[in-house]
Amino acid sequence: MAIEASSEAGSHNRIRLGMVGGGQASFIGAVHRIAARIDDQFELTAGALASDPVRAKASAKELGIANDRAYSSFEEMAKAEAARPDGIEVVSIVTPNHVHGPVARTFLEAGIHVICDKPLTTTVAEAEEMVELVRKTGKVFVVTHNYTGYPMVRQARAMVANGDLGEIRLVQAEYLQDWLTERLEASGHKQAAWRTDPTRSGPGGCIGDIGTHAYNLACFVTGLQLDELLAQLSTFVSGRRLDDDVQILLKWKGGAKGMLWASQVAVGNENGLTLRVYGTKGGLEWVQENPNHLWFTRYGQPKQLLTRGGAGALVEAGRLTRVPSGHPEGYLEGFATIYTEAARAVRAAQAGKPPDPAVIFPTVEDGLASVKFIEAAVSSSANNGAWVRIT
Amino acid sequence: MAIEASSEAGSHNRIRLGMVGGGQASFIGAVHRIAARIDDQFELTAGALASDPVRAKASAKELGIANDRAYSSFEEMAKAEAARPDGIEVVSIVTPNHVHGPVARTFLEAGIHVICDKPLTTTVAEAEEMVELVRKTGKVFVVTHNYTGYPMVRQARAMVANGDLGEIRLVQAEYLQDWLTERLEASGHKQAAWRTDPTRSGPGGCIGDIGTHAYNLACFVTGLQLDELLAQLSTFVSGRRLDDDVQILLKWKGGAKGMLWASQVAVGNENGLTLRVYGTKGGLEWVQENPNHLWFTRYGQPKQLLTRGGAGALVEAGRLTRVPSGHPEGYLEGFATIYTEAARAVRAAQAGKPPDPAVIFPTVEDGLASVKFIEAAVSSSANNGAWVRIT
Amino acid sequence: MAIEASSEAGSHNRIRLGMVGGGQASFIGAVHRIAARIDDQFELTAGALASDPVRAKASAKELGIANDRAYSSFEEMAKAEAARPDGIEVVSIVTPNHVHGPVARTFLEAGIHVICDKPLTTTVAEAEEMVELVRKTGKVFVVTHNYTGYPMVRQARAMVANGDLGEIRLVQAEYLQDWLTERLEASGHKQAAWRTDPTRSGPGGCIGDIGTHAYNLACFVTGLQLDELLAQLSTFVSGRRLDDDVQILLKWKGGAKGMLWASQVAVGNENGLTLRVYGTKGGLEWVQENPNHLWFTRYGQPKQLLTRGGAGALVEAGRLTRVPSGHPEGYLEGFATIYTEAARAVRAAQAGKPPDPAVIFPTVEDGLASVKFIEAAVSSSANNGAWVRIT
Amino acid sequence: MAIEASSEAGSHNRIRLGMVGGGQASFIGAVHRIAARIDDQFELTAGALASDPVRAKASAKELGIANDRAYSSFEEMAKAEAARPDGIEVVSIVTPNHVHGPVARTFLEAGIHVICDKPLTTTVAEAEEMVELVRKTGKVFVVTHNYTGYPMVRQARAMVANGDLGEIRLVQAEYLQDWLTERLEASGHKQAAWRTDPTRSGPGGCIGDIGTHAYNLACFVTGLQLDELLAQLSTFVSGRRLDDDVQILLKWKGGAKGMLWASQVAVGNENGLTLRVYGTKGGLEWVQENPNHLWFTRYGQPKQLLTRGGAGALVEAGRLTRVPSGHPEGYLEGFATIYTEAARAVRAAQAGKPPDPAVIFPTVEDGLASVKFIEAAVSSSANNGAWVRIT
Repeated sequence: MAIEASSEAGSHNRIRLGMVGGGQASFIGAVHRIAARIDDQFELTAGALASDPVRAKASAKELGIANDRAYSSFEEMAKAEAARPDGIEVVSIVTPNHVHGPVARTFLEAGIHVICDKPLTTTVAEAEEMVELVRKTGKVFVVTHNYTGYPMVRQARAMVANGDLGEIRLVQAEYLQDWLTERLEASGHKQAAWRTDPTRSGPGGCIGDIGTHAYNLACFVTGLQLDELLAQLSTFVSGRRLDDDVQILLKWKGGAKGMLWASQVAVGNENGLTLRVYGTKGGLEWVQENPNHLWFTRYGQPKQLLTRGGAGALVEAGRLTRVPSGHPEGYLEGFATIYTEAARAVRAAQAGKPPDPAVIFPTVEDGLASVKFIEAAVSSSANNGAWVRIT
Repeated sequence: MAIEASSEAGSHNRIRLGMVGGGQASFIGAVHRIAARIDDQFELTAGALASDPVRAKASAKELGIANDRAYSSFEEMAKAEAARPDGIEVVSIVTPNHVHGPVARTFLEAGIHVICDKPLTTTVAEAEEMVELVRKTGKVFVVTHNYTGYPMVRQARAMVANGDLGEIRLVQAEYLQDWLTERLEASGHKQAAWRTDPTRSGPGGCIGDIGTHAYNLACFVTGLQLDELLAQLSTFVSGRRLDDDVQILLKWKGGAKGMLWASQVAVGNENGLTLRVYGTKGGLEWVQENPNHLWFTRYGQPKQLLTRGGAGALVEAGRLTRVPSGHPEGYLEGFATIYTEAARAVRAAQAGKPPDPAVIFPTVEDGLASVKFIEAAVSSSANNGAWVRIT
Repeated sequence: MAIEASSEAGSHNRIRLGMVGGGQASFIGAVHRIAARIDDQFELTAGALASDPVRAKASAKELGIANDRAYSSFEEMAKAEAARPDGIEVVSIVTPNHVHGPVARTFLEAGIHVICDKPLTTTVAEAEEMVELVRKTGKVFVVTHNYTGYPMVRQARAMVANGDLGEIRLVQAEYLQDWLTERLEASGHKQAAWRTDPTRSGPGGCIGDIGTHAYNLACFVTGLQLDELLAQLSTFVSGRRLDDDVQILLKWKGGAKGMLWASQVAVGNENGLTLRVYGTKGGLEWVQENPNHLWFTRYGQPKQLLTRGGAGALVEAGRLTRVPSGHPEGYLEGFATIYTEAARAVRAAQAGKPPDPAVIFPTVEDGLASVKFIEAAVSSSANNGAWVRIT
Repeated sequence: MAIEASSEAGSHNRIRLGMVGGGQASFIGAVHRIAARIDDQFELTAGALASDPVRAKASAKELGIANDRAYSSFEEMAKAEAARPDGIEVVSIVTPNHVHGPVARTFLEAGIHVICDKPLTTTVAEAEEMVELVRKTGKVFVVTHNYTGYPMVRQARAMVANGDLGEIRLVQAEYLQDWLTERLEASGHKQAAWRTDPTRSGPGGCIGDIGTHAYNLACFVTGLQLDELLAQLSTFVSGRRLDDDVQILLKWKGGAKGMLWASQVAVGNENGLTLRVYGTKGGLEWVQENPNHLWFTRYGQPKQLLTRGGAGALVEAGRLTRVPSGHPEGYLEGFATIYTEAARAVRAAQAGKPPDPAVIFPTVEDGLASVKFIEAAVSSSANNGAWVRIT
């Protein structure tokens, strides 16, 4: 309840949101729109929803966007909206990866806050420029590493920070899918096509699409920074142009070790994102497909099942909880939390207030970290599994 | 995606929604509002959110309702909204149980469609009058037995209807909680107070609050009608005024048997709604706390784990699915589906079209069935567990 | 390790064991023999393994029983073994139910300790006579309600006794199978044939075969005595002569309530014995198919997963544990514990020592209780679900 | 039932078994003895159970070994038993690792079959000599990689061999414990002491103790041979002399990839041995702590839960099954299967018959493979994670 019950909410006061990408047949566009609605902080007001003008208009109409705010290009949209007194305050970028950078730059320069899908960009250089630009413009910039929005992920992060695990020794992350087990991209599957195309996805396939989520989650929960990695990237499906399986050894600063495995060819796995963290005093385990649960063991005591909103829930999780324990919240609610945190940051910025330290979202720096991670893994694998230092 | 990707959606075309009850400190009011937003079919436009005028205004303001549409009484609201050209089209009733009937009657008579929390009313007589009134007025009337909105519940219903289980023999339903293990109502807990108060809840405590959900779910999935029941209601917590545990034997028309157990004092259970159905050819099991899974066994074959959106998903489930398999949907999405089905029905009614048979929601007749179930169980228990026939 | 590491064990000192029934094609005979061997307390020395003399001899030969101790009738065996200085000390009875009584009487009267499969007898009168005879002869008499041998069942019993659950309110037991979903007994299946034949099984089918296990387990863990029951027994498979599904309401002395459901037609269940107990202070849940785990929740605290041998294990469980936690023990080990407890009791009796209170096994009185339970349930069901008091 | 119901079994015909090591306070000795008894194929007849003569005698007495066959040294035992007409036929070696080699050689040279705990030896050179010696003597030699005895592991192996998974792409193995999270070896814990002592364990700690089990299991199920590995071994506990965590990248011959993670400091894990295998057509997952289950997904179909003895069980699993599905078998039964397969091989050898191809157990060659695996991992880690080819 914590989220809605605030004087910020309500239709009288929704933040005007624009969207680039996310037209008909997009998966992630619809997700962003639902996420933006759940806590009633945003109203979708403008869009450049597709590169094809006809489809852009049709998509906008379906979504109730006024005809004069259905744009054919993001440049046009940025210019027009920036000029309106009732122009959009925030833009969501849900295009294929290679367009993230240009769109984000355009809107930042137009003075509009940005919510950008991950990975931030397709090169480290471009990501570093983005970090600079965000600092220069002072705009809010959110990268939708959405799994950080789950309450039990926040609980895990708080428990690590509180020392419940002691000193961290092991961080193991997995993200397993099977939808690319066969060469789907060869049969006209739109999602498969762009995700396996280096010109649109960048140099990483599986590692960029889902490996970065696992990496971001590991960093988010543990607060650790990666020191070195060593990767073997594989392309199991013949004819595929990017990796579809990634196996990485990790050395974290401070001495922790770990492994990261991401796969899109692990038959029987739908969206198997899992994080396990072990320290000198305790261990915890979280599985995205059952996100309301968090397993915690204090060394020498029975394993505990912590639940969203149940006994032992910390304020860091409770402030993101909409319904009582036992009423499962899911992927969309976690995603919505990213939007709602973004709304809080935007309102603070608009009011000239300093950011509330309780408000947490993946930043442009986190986005840069993920791009560095992709680049390092690709480089290590190309060098037969050499250790690569993260700078 | 099926839900949003329709030309009905969008802010240009949202259904105007009013709400009675659901002000500050309400649990279920916030749930209804999120549910109404998720698929973008409704805009909350008016409310009589609390019986206290000051709290009613304050609650409305928080939710962005215009001041002139924040009413102090539902009668006033019905009258004023019915008179406006832009008046509400649908009202949501989220008050304590004893007020459902009067409010619903008032809005039906004002020509406004109704979404009403369960149980429909506190007496069978009042529920039967409601059925009559709905037939007479021709308005859409939805009772929020929300668990019928989960895709895998729809899948289960379709599988039973398709004959995948053969002839049904056994229907076992459970709904277990522990939040009333101690006498919470004596310490000022608002939710506990009205739910254990016969003047506000009606004659059933646990049976009305959660037993009816389990019963509705069993009927919804199997399509069976109850013939007779035999109940023992218990009040384990000293000083409590209504039952906190319910155990019922069931005889279904056609020969199936079953048991229903609902408890609010089963320590370690949060919201344990479970349905198990067994027939001559197969069996299925569904657990609300992990709602994206459905277990199915064809007799003599290995048990299968069916997932929302995964292999084997039927269209009856697929049409309600927003995100791919492995991305869990939860309680709010299931609740949202009830609202979205309601929107479809309302739009059809407004267009003078016959109802789409694919659109399914719990009706006023289902609401009546639940009230009969409460009354029969209370009566059976009062007669030391006599069999009571459902008429 | 606790079990083996005792000076009682070893081949020099094995208790001489005879067996009645359990020849070729018997399921439970082989189980008893393995159970008798696991902790090295017994040596199978004599047998009347089948009613057919040829099969009796052949079965004995396969099992390494000397030819002169392979008997054609149990009467002959009792007489001959009682007369030998190296005669058997204990007999195991693993025949169909209707023979339990005659065999047990014969061996008791011959001065031989008895381990008898359940149900003890097919009538209450016969069971009561057996209780008398055991008291008169002073022999050790063990009924193999084997599920009481699981360490986590002992843990649960100890926790209830220690007050960890507070005052017990609810006791729910289930035992679900699906192997009799079709009319297996009509196609020559030996196990199905005798278990559905009232002349060999007695008046109860499913209730005698598995319902009594669930009932015994509930009594064993909670220490409660049943006051009244109300049953509906069903025969779902056309042509079957005994019940294949049993649903029972329970009133326990002291005010606890509960339900018991046993079924052999619940498709998708293999051997689903489950016990759930809830009290004023805590709740616990145990599932036979994963017997090394016990779920425990203290009211208001996170749910705990207690494991066999893990943190929180009590001595009552630890004394029965052979391998460290995480190395699963199963059905045969639990069964073996019944034999090992029997061995301890027999050795104490032989030494003229009083029974060790730490040594626990299902007694002839427990066997009588199960037969009373069957009779009461059959009677209640025949009277359309009347409450029947347990005397 | 398949195991016992054979004319080989029975006390008249038990194989005479000796044991080296396994006296008081040994964990694994008791396990071997129970395993040897379960299917009634062996009788423990002689032992050199401890290096200390007093403890050796006392241990033997407890186990019912005749005083004149309780030896103070394995050399003495081998000589004396080989000279007796009723001498032992098989010896079990359950000493710390560094003694495996000398003992095994001595008994092989004395003409006695060997069942040897893993790892086979502490160096590759010694293991290679053992392979030679086994070939030369023609004796049966079994290494107790006991997890290969679980029926569902055999089922998995058969399914891979039958092509149910298509071409294997990914093989992921884990073995997680937490019992060495603190420096147990410094506080007099006997098991911890020798397992972390390079003079008794050899060059590998965690990798030798449990990593080899995971590796053996992966090889056993997939039938693949390892081509190269790359390892990072860690010692997280200060003062510990061997690794307590092992993370390895795997390249299998034929192109499959994989990871292996073994840890003894992963808090909350008891004995978490897990194997996951994914191919072009299907995937399977097995977890040792719930060993009666095997998850199998055929690409594009719902996930199936295969159970020991349930629908879909293959003969390769069924021949090792003692009780019906739903009655869990555990660690000791799996271990017993290794002994029973050994008994079959020994009887065939004694009868001069060729080995039955259905009889499967981990061989001396498998033992050599595990020692090579340890050596390669230690070497790779010492070289900062270089790829090391397995020869």
